[in-house]
Amino acid sequence: MKKLSHYDSAGSARMVDVSAKSETRRSARAHAFVRIAPAVLKKLPSNPKGNPLEIARIAGIAAAKRTSDLIPLCHPLMLTHADVEVTVEKKGVRIVATAATTAQTGVEMEALTAAGVAALTVYDMTKALDKSIEIQDLYLLEKTGGKSGDYLRTASRGATRDGARAKLEAPAPRESGGRKVSGGTK
Amino acid sequence: MKKLSHYDSAGSARMVDVSAKSETRRSARAHAFVRIAPAVLKKLPSNPKGNPLEIARIAGIAAAKRTSDLIPLCHPLMLTHADVEVTVEKKGVRIVATAATTAQTGVEMEALTAAGVAALTVYDMTKALDKSIEIQDLYLLEKTGGKSGDYLRTASRGATRDGARAKLEAPAPRESGGRKVSGGTK
Amino acid sequence: MKKLSHYDSAGSARMVDVSAKSETRRSARAHAFVRIAPAVLKKLPSNPKGNPLEIARIAGIAAAKRTSDLIPLCHPLMLTHADVEVTVEKKGVRIVATAATTAQTGVEMEALTAAGVAALTVYDMTKALDKSIEIQDLYLLEKTGGKSGDYLRTASRGATRDGARAKLEAPAPRESGGRKVSGGTK
Amino acid sequence: MKKLSHYDSAGSARMVDVSAKSETRRSARAHAFVRIAPAVLKKLPSNPKGNPLEIARIAGIAAAKRTSDLIPLCHPLMLTHADVEVTVEKKGVRIVATAATTAQTGVEMEALTAAGVAALTVYDMTKALDKSIEIQDLYLLEKTGGKSGDYLRTASRGATRDGARAKLEAPAPRESGGRKVSGGTK
Amino acid sequence: MKKLSHYDSAGSARMVDVSAKSETRRSARAHAFVRIAPAVLKKLPSNPKGNPLEIARIAGIAAAKRTSDLIPLCHPLMLTHADVEVTVEKKGVRIVATAATTAQTGVEMEALTAAGVAALTVYDMTKALDKSIEIQDLYLLEKTGGKSGDYLRTASRGATRDGARAKLEAPAPRESGGRKVSGGTK
Amino acid sequence: MKKLSHYDSAGSARMVDVSAKSETRRSARAHAFVRIAPAVLKKLPSNPKGNPLEIARIAGIAAAKRTSDLIPLCHPLMLTHADVEVTVEKKGVRIVATAATTAQTGVEMEALTAAGVAALTVYDMTKALDKSIEIQDLYLLEKTGGKSGDYLRTASRGATRDGARAKLEAPAPRESGGRKVSGGTK
Repeated sequence: MKKLSHYDSAGSARMVDVSAKSETRRSARAHAFVRIAPAVLKKLPSNPKGNPLEIARIAGIAAAKRTSDLIPLCHPLMLTHADVEVTVEKKGVRIVATAATTAQTGVEMEALTAAGVAALTVYDMTKALDKSIEIQDLYLLEKTGGKSGDYLRTASRGATRDGARAKLEAPAPRESGGRKVSGGTK
Repeated sequence: MKKLSHYDSAGSARMVDVSAKSETRRSARAHAFVRIAPAVLKKLPSNPKGNPLEIARIAGIAAAKRTSDLIPLCHPLMLTHADVEVTVEKKGVRIVATAATTAQTGVEMEALTAAGVAALTVYDMTKALDKSIEIQDLYLLEKTGGKSGDYLRTASRGATRDGARAKLEAPAPRESGGRKVSGGTK
Repeated sequence: MKKLSHYDSAGSARMVDVSAKSETRRSARAHAFVRIAPAVLKKLPSNPKGNPLEIARIAGIAAAKRTSDLIPLCHPLMLTHADVEVTVEKKGVRIVATAATTAQTGVEMEALTAAGVAALTVYDMTKALDKSIEIQDLYLLEKTGGKSGDYLRTASRGATRDGARAKLEAPAPRESGGRKVSGGTK
Repeated sequence: MKKLSHYDSAGSARMVDVSAKSETRRSARAHAFVRIAPAVLKKLPSNPKGNPLEIARIAGIAAAKRTSDLIPLCHPLMLTHADVEVTVEKKGVRIVATAATTAQTGVEMEALTAAGVAALTVYDMTKALDKSIEIQDLYLLEKTGGKSGDYLRTASRGATRDGARAKLEAPAPRESGGRKVSGGTK
Repeated sequence: MKKLSHYDSAGSARMVDVSAKSETRRSARAHAFVRIAPAVLKKLPSNPKGNPLEIARIAGIAAAKRTSDLIPLCHPLMLTHADVEVTVEKKGVRIVATAATTAQTGVEMEALTAAGVAALTVYDMTKALDKSIEIQDLYLLEKTGGKSGDYLRTASRGATRDGARAKLEAPAPRESGGRKVSGGTK
Repeated sequence: MKKLSHYDSAGSARMVDVSAKSETRRSARAHAFVRIAPAVLKKLPSNPKGNPLEIARIAGIAAAKRTSDLIPLCHPLMLTHADVEVTVEKKGVRIVATAATTAQTGVEMEALTAAGVAALTVYDMTKALDKSIEIQDLYLLEKTGGKSGDYLRTASRGATRDGARAKLEAPAPRESGGRKVSGGTK
């Protein structure tokens, strides 16, 4: 197992020095699910003048651009792309956020922050109807680029709460034993 | 069921006008859980020079103060208090965020944003070890104040993933004042 | 004519001290027009999945909340309301922004900043088609509250470029209360 | 006519993916005019301790650096230069903003945002005297670099409100390289 | 000696809960001195088009408004006034920043942040000439309001580096109201 | 002596145009000292749950990332590293901040801003005990990279207030490369 790169020898947290790393193309994709009761979902208006979930998308994209301002030890970087897809499903709203850049450090946090803030925005817009709405399954789906190699989340990560989630994930690998990341990606 | 207050009659999203509301004391408490494999948790350093989870706490508090900058339709307000508790447990890191103010609008989003960003910060600090860490159960625990009354999340909200969660939640209230949450909303 | 309140006796600009002012209800409404050639306008998609002009609205609302961060001598204040209406017309996109609060200082700058940033966002979203798009007529339509009284822009302010603009403006008041605007200031 | 690059096939707005673009030198110049009545202009102090319009310049430069924070679908980029010129003329204050970088995307929005925020700052500093001050003619004067080629605004764009504007613009090019702007787009 | 209010019983830092405090009028004044060699000072241009130190003033005022964004455990508050005076002296540039509000918490940090950022801005504007410029004597001069009473820095605080500093400070009060500062704390 | 690069020929301040500069590796190290009376220092808790000075470190790192947002004429740049060391000494808290990047412009302001904001944060966390705490000796220790060459602050810069400071500084170089600082500039 690797050393925790944010902790220096004395235990105080610090930013990783990426000065010596080379710039490579990076991308990441993250996921979040906003569980909303069907009765609440029905009220989400769908009309020609505008899709209200668009606000969540925009909030997520804007948050991706501010990731290093929110996460203390995160490096600033110039995103070449950020996008958030928001889909209404039977049990809630699914969010998939994408980020890309060419940089000395990865964009996992950008994708995760976009997904998280988009999910919080969905909550904000629907909380008047139901305060018990939950954000679940905020995690990394995939990343490419960088020295640590590619990462692809496996579908078999225990009992998922939402069957629908499977379609976002890669086919279930063998060795499902809970948390597995294929050996090579480390 | 109430009308979605963020949507105007024509369907385009907008900020709720709280100009006519009176200022009252408001508080909110939100929860998040960062699922981390025990093997990764063991590596979290505990040493005299500083507790690394402190960064997550500070990130959460700072994020609470920027909530209206992140959530497009959220009102700006002056927090009189914000705090984030971070506890290492057997299966990960539990986060409980608190926010309070005296204002025309509530602080649910401030507490949720604090919990969410603190959780993302934990992820950022541990992702070098395991990219499959997940943020789960980001939801409101409680709110007080405001016209809609108090809200207390019931402990009975379905099969929780973590037994430990129960201790954070109050016992299910019997028709407690304010908005009631029936178990059936799932 | 009044003294320029931002300039101290020695000529260096400074923030007005509003400490002694009382909090009153304030509102303001501002206008901007994005001139877009009809051929470009036709391309603005109108489809069920989302209204693209919604992004301009959200950008304007978000900018209203950051006004004191953008305008150096502007006081911070807690908006109780901000909204932006975006309408596609024959010659372009009309923007009307509204802001309200209860504070020691007015919200003219918040409404104007919302209208201006919404207009810039429309430009950003359409500039791939035509870089000659122009933002015109960014001005205050109306304000209420505060010691200086109410202000209502008169419709007679010279030859407007867009006939359509008239409908946004109240009929020219005859010595309406508050600050009067003579047609002769042009 | 080109496709609107911010709109995906389904109609929801998104950031353009510039990952595959190469970094080139980019520059842009934008214009705004703040119409101020001569009687108000006379009051603008001119004294040895400082030029108050300097605040508008600084506000514009600072805003240029925050463009991607204000305009939702705008890419972040590292400006190598930003400047704002502010000139008092007979009918108001003319603003010309410049931005430059080496990046995968252009700096039109940075120049326009600088000009717009500088103009709003002039309004803020003079509004105590006259609330009817107007911001006009916020548009792109010129851009260089990038795949779409250079752009130079033609002087012949209809009846300008201010004769003085002409001097800021190059003579109408005859099919000058890059994007052409026909007089007929109005 | 009082308890350190930012530290809870367990030692982790947190924001002070001011929810129960009443709003009172608060003000604070802070000081900084930028030591610049006379040879460098001579180069500071003084010309009709603008006073370059104006930028430091504006930067300080803008920073005051962002104090709670910079200082993690600082409460957000709505400044009713912020000002920065910048004076060129024989040995450098003296900065005095003022902040005021009516709030549940004081504005010492706002005044100090304004003075500090104004001083850093002076450094930024002069560093091309001399990188050894120093910022000294960044401290609170005075505060009024709040439960802890008024505070006035005494002139006798040890050997000052700059004789000129004395004139900014009130004569040492004899048991002046509020918090007393004994010379012996050094 | 060089020309002040921020001032254009007419005297109004502006951002240096670094478009033509080449990207090189840059680093900088800055210093600040927070003078705290021994009696106050004794109260700084040291306990297993967390080191409160960690907040100052994190605040400094976060501020480094926002330098161009705080200092008006500072270029934005992507830090590859930022760190802040905070040490409790007999007479106060010593802060040394480091910043690094590969860019067209240096990171002196990033290091200085980190040191300054970390120092202000220490003040904020201790001001309840003693409002007379002072920030002293905020200056550049060292910089490397860029056309102007390396800079190393000499230890001989006059009578330091704190003997301890010496150990942070390199021995006075003998005509070390880059800009030399003569003791006589004071």
